[in-house]
Amino acid sequence: MKNKAIVTGLYIADQDGTFVSRPLEYVTFDFGGIIGDRHYGMTYPSNVRQPMYPKGTEILNRRQLSVLSIEELKHIASHLQIEYINAEWLGANLVISGLEQLTHLPVNTRLLFPSGAGIICEGENAPCTLAGSEVQKRYPDKKKLASKFVKAASGKRGIVCSVERPGIVNVNDSIEIIYPD
Amino acid sequence: MKNKAIVTGLYIADQDGTFVSRPLEYVTFDFGGIIGDRHYGMTYPSNVRQPMYPKGTEILNRRQLSVLSIEELKHIASHLQIEYINAEWLGANLVISGLEQLTHLPVNTRLLFPSGAGIICEGENAPCTLAGSEVQKRYPDKKKLASKFVKAASGKRGIVCSVERPGIVNVNDSIEIIYPD
Repeated sequence: MKNKAIVTGLYIADQDGTFVSRPLEYVTFDFGGIIGDRHYGMTYPSNVRQPMYPKGTEILNRRQLSVLSIEELKHIASHLQIEYINAEWLGANLVISGLEQLTHLPVNTRLLFPSGAGIICEGENAPCTLAGSEVQKRYPDKKKLASKFVKAASGKRGIVCSVERPGIVNVNDSIEIIYPD
Repeated sequence: MKNKAIVTGLYIADQDGTFVSRPLEYVTFDFGGIIGDRHYGMTYPSNVRQPMYPKGTEILNRRQLSVLSIEELKHIASHLQIEYINAEWLGANLVISGLEQLTHLPVNTRLLFPSGAGIICEGENAPCTLAGSEVQKRYPDKKKLASKFVKAASGKRGIVCSVERPGIVNVNDSIEIIYPD
């Protein structure tokens, strides 16, 4: 099964910055992700998401890229009764449009770009209050948005990916989606 | 969900040798797999299994290790009406026992070893006639074993894995199996 989508935004979360990312016109993927991004690396120290290893153990990095969809961001904002959610607040690297349920893509689905670059879906990105707090900051008049975000974003907060083949990706690039056998 | 299994055999397919592997008492996994093995590397040239890339493109290596189960090998041999199949003939790196349906483990299941080493299931290893030919060689009196193997081994030829955390693995080690969320 094949499918198409489009790149609507590209972002980097600077290594010396915070969780929040900033927009770029294009990014270069290499085997560790986006050079200079906080999550860059073929390996990284384990954290609470890998409780089977002592915290800080060097492990394979399967969370190089955070991918979100415009459609799902709108769903979350609608559920929270807020005007919009910027992908940057959630630390996105890649925002796409045209795929109704990005977060439910099967593990090992490939996303291919016109340059030949390819990334692989490693699974759903479970929402956390860290991202929720960033949303809360932008809507100080709303109550308990950080925790409400975790619930509203469940199944809609996008996926994490690894780079399978390096290359350049531009805003407005088409994406070919190849499902696993 | 958790589960247990045991390491019954460890093997290397030498880089200057053939597809067939040879037994070892222990192996050391690093981030590229087993040093000296034909499939060693954090990246490798794409082949017929990745038709979305031009053949020979450098891509992420998610097929570092071939893992089989004693129980499934017995099933295949029984179906083919032959006495036994040696894991080496199929190029195995790791043979385990105690898990009835290894080949159906979900993608992203982790296998953890007493040393702390950990590997991740990347999915089923689709049977090919290359492995079937090795079985045929040992039973010259049987007919069409190479192609019959592909059918008999479907869903029973084990999985491919990547190393998530390096470490030593010994024959008779226990394996803790951790299913994805």
